Amino acid sequence: MNLLDVVPTPAAVVDEARMLRNIARMQRHLDGHGVKLRPHVKTSKSVDVVRRQQAAGAEAITVSTLKEAEQFFAAGFTDILYAVCMAPGKLDRALALVEQGCRLQIITDSLQGAQAIVAGSQAARRPLTVLIEIDSDGDRSGIQPGDDLLLEVGRALHGGGCSLHGVMTHAGSSYECSTPAALLRVANQERDQCVLAAQRLRDAGLPCPVVSIGSTPTALSASGFTGVSEVRAGVYVFFDLVMAGIGVCSTDDIALSVLTTVIGHQRDKGWIICDAGWMALSGDRGTRSQATDQGYGIVCDASGSPMPGYVVSSANQEHGIILNRDTPLQQQLEQRFPVGSKLRVLPNHACATAAQYTEYCVLARDGGLQTWPRFSGW
Amino acid sequence: MNLLDVVPTPAAVVDEARMLRNIARMQRHLDGHGVKLRPHVKTSKSVDVVRRQQAAGAEAITVSTLKEAEQFFAAGFTDILYAVCMAPGKLDRALALVEQGCRLQIITDSLQGAQAIVAGSQAARRPLTVLIEIDSDGDRSGIQPGDDLLLEVGRALHGGGCSLHGVMTHAGSSYECSTPAALLRVANQERDQCVLAAQRLRDAGLPCPVVSIGSTPTALSASGFTGVSEVRAGVYVFFDLVMAGIGVCSTDDIALSVLTTVIGHQRDKGWIICDAGWMALSGDRGTRSQATDQGYGIVCDASGSPMPGYVVSSANQEHGIILNRDTPLQQQLEQRFPVGSKLRVLPNHACATAAQYTEYCVLARDGGLQTWPRFSGW
Repeated sequence: MNLLDVVPTPAAVVDEARMLRNIARMQRHLDGHGVKLRPHVKTSKSVDVVRRQQAAGAEAITVSTLKEAEQFFAAGFTDILYAVCMAPGKLDRALALVEQGCRLQIITDSLQGAQAIVAGSQAARRPLTVLIEIDSDGDRSGIQPGDDLLLEVGRALHGGGCSLHGVMTHAGSSYECSTPAALLRVANQERDQCVLAAQRLRDAGLPCPVVSIGSTPTALSASGFTGVSEVRAGVYVFFDLVMAGIGVCSTDDIALSVLTTVIGHQRDKGWIICDAGWMALSGDRGTRSQATDQGYGIVCDASGSPMPGYVVSSANQEHGIILNRDTPLQQQLEQRFPVGSKLRVLPNHACATAAQYTEYCVLARDGGLQTWPRFSGW
Repeated sequence: MNLLDVVPTPAAVVDEARMLRNIARMQRHLDGHGVKLRPHVKTSKSVDVVRRQQAAGAEAITVSTLKEAEQFFAAGFTDILYAVCMAPGKLDRALALVEQGCRLQIITDSLQGAQAIVAGSQAARRPLTVLIEIDSDGDRSGIQPGDDLLLEVGRALHGGGCSLHGVMTHAGSSYECSTPAALLRVANQERDQCVLAAQRLRDAGLPCPVVSIGSTPTALSASGFTGVSEVRAGVYVFFDLVMAGIGVCSTDDIALSVLTTVIGHQRDKGWIICDAGWMALSGDRGTRSQATDQGYGIVCDASGSPMPGYVVSSANQEHGIILNRDTPLQQQLEQRFPVGSKLRVLPNHACATAAQYTEYCVLARDGGLQTWPRFSGW
C-alpha cells in the first residue's frame, strides 16, 4: 500500500525530505562562501515551501511577478526583490506595497524605465528602491557593464530621488552548460561582470551598496563570491531534469514529480497511455537541446524510483505516451502496468510543471500526506 | 486611446467578434453536412465561451477532465462526453455526476478499463454510458477497428450491464498535415475507420447507436459525414498559429492573443523585451515542426494587427524576446516600441496559452471590455 494510492491524478507530488536536503545544500554552500542567499520563489509559489527556505536561513526573497510580491508580503515576507524590469503600468502596485511597509526592490535596464520609475516615485512622493539590471552574458536583459548607459540610468535614478540600491544580473546562459568547466566560466563571468558594473557606478560617485547575482547552476559553480552581496537561485528547491542534465544535481535529488494513472496501452507499439499530458507536465521540453533528451520526463514507479529507459515520449493535452526508449517493444505491458496503476514522472523544468497546479501533494517528512497550496497568475 | 491601455499585462485577450465568426463557421459547416457538432470545451474552459457555442446550435459538449464535466454540469450543461479513457480511480466522480442527473458518457479502449467500469457500475447499481475509443490513425489511444479486442470490450461492457453507446475517435495526426489533400485523406480515414468499427460491433449483435469523430482540422476537411452521428472540435473557437500553419484558418481568424508590455530593449541585437514569457504564452512550440516556425508567437500591435516579421523568438518564465526575423537589426527600437508600450501575441496553441490564465479579457462585440472567468485543474 502506497500513501499516494488515494491521491487523484494527475497531481504534483513533493518529496519533502528531498526538498529539505536541496534547501540545506544550497544554504550550506552559500553560508560557506559567506554570501547571502535570496531564494527565487517563482519555482514553488508556495508559502509552505518558502517558509522552509526561510527556516534554513534565507530571510529575503526574489519574485518574478508583483502577485508573488503581494502574496508573500501578505504572508509576512518583507524583503522582496522583484527581478523583472519594471513596466510603468505596474508602478502603482509596487508603490502600494511600499506604502504598506514592504521593503520592495525593483529593477530597470533602460533610461525610459528609469524615467518612468522616477516620475511614478515623485508623483507618489515615495522614493522607490531600484537596482540596475546588468547583462553579464548576452542572454536576455540588462546593461553591459562597460556601456555608458549604465551611468546615465544610475544618474537618472539617483538624481531623481530614488534609492539607487545596486546592480543585479542573472546568467541565463548557464542553462546551456554541460560541463563543470563551462559552468565555472559562466559563473565567474556573471560575478565579475556584475562586480565590474558596481565598481563603475561607485567610481562615478553613485551609490551601489548591493551586488546581486545568480541562478541555480552558477550559485553552485562559482569559485567564490568576492564583491557579491547576495546570490539568487530558484529551481534548486525542487531541482529537475534540466538541472540534472547540466550536472548540478542527480535525478535522486528531484523533489517534484507528477503522479499519473495508466489509462490504456498500445501493445503493438509498446506504449503505455497515462493521464499526464502537457497540461499536467507542462509543454517544457528543456532537455531537448541537452545530451540526453528526456522527452516530457523520466518515468518512475509509484514509489518514485526511475524505471530505466521509460520516458514520456509524447504528450497531448490530457494524454501522455510512455515508452521504453531502450527496448521499445516491451512484453506484457498490460500485466506489468495495468490500467489504474500509478506512476510518477520527473519533470524537465520544475518551475513550469509546478505552475500547472493549484496545490502540492506532499509526502511529508513525518511520513504523512499534506496539501500545500500554491498560486498562479500575475 | 486603446481599450486595452488599462488592462494589466500579461492578459489573455479574446476578440469576441472573431470568436463568434469562428463559432458560426464551424456550426454552419456541420449543419450543412447534417451532422451534430459537439464542441470540445477544453480549449476555453469558460462557461461564457461555451454558452455562445450553445447559442449557435451546439447543445452537447466534450470535456477532457472530470472537473470540466462537473463545472459545466453545474452551469446547466447536461449532455457531456468525457473523451479521455476512464481511470478506475475516477469512477466515483463519474458516478456522482450520473447520480445528479448528468447524461455523462465515458470512454475506454481496453478490457481492463471495461472490466473496471463494469465493476464500478455494478457496485453502484447504476449503469454507465460508455463509448469505445477507436484508433483511426495510429496517433495515440484506441482500438483498431479490425482488432478482435473491439468485440471483447463491447461484450464486456454490454454483458456487464453498461449502456454500450457507440464508438469515438480523434485523428490527432491531422495536426501534422499541411495540405488540403493530406487533410482530406486523414479526415476521411478518421470517419471510415470509426464507421467500420461501428459496423463490426453491430454485425456482432452489439448496440452502437453513436459514431463520434473529430478534430478541428478533420471537421473542416472531410468530404462528408455519412455514418457519423456527431463531430467533436475544440480549438476552432479561438483558432491559433498551429491551425493557420495547417491551413484551416488565417491569422485574421485567431481570436485569442496575449497582451504584453515592453519592459526593455537590447538595441545591438534588435531585441524588444516584453513581460510575456512562457508563463504567459505557454511553452507550446507547436509551429516548430511546421513549414514556418513562429517561435513563441506572432507579434501584433496593440490593436491586434500582425507586424510583419516580428515574433517572440525566445521566452523565459516572465520575459519574452521579440525579434524581427526578416530584418533583425531594426533601427530606433526604443522610439518605435518604448518601454511601457503594449503589444499582442498570437499563440501557437490556444488551448495551452489559455490554460495559463484564470480569466479572459474580452473585447466584446458591443465595443466594451468584459471579464470572463475560466478554470484550470482536474
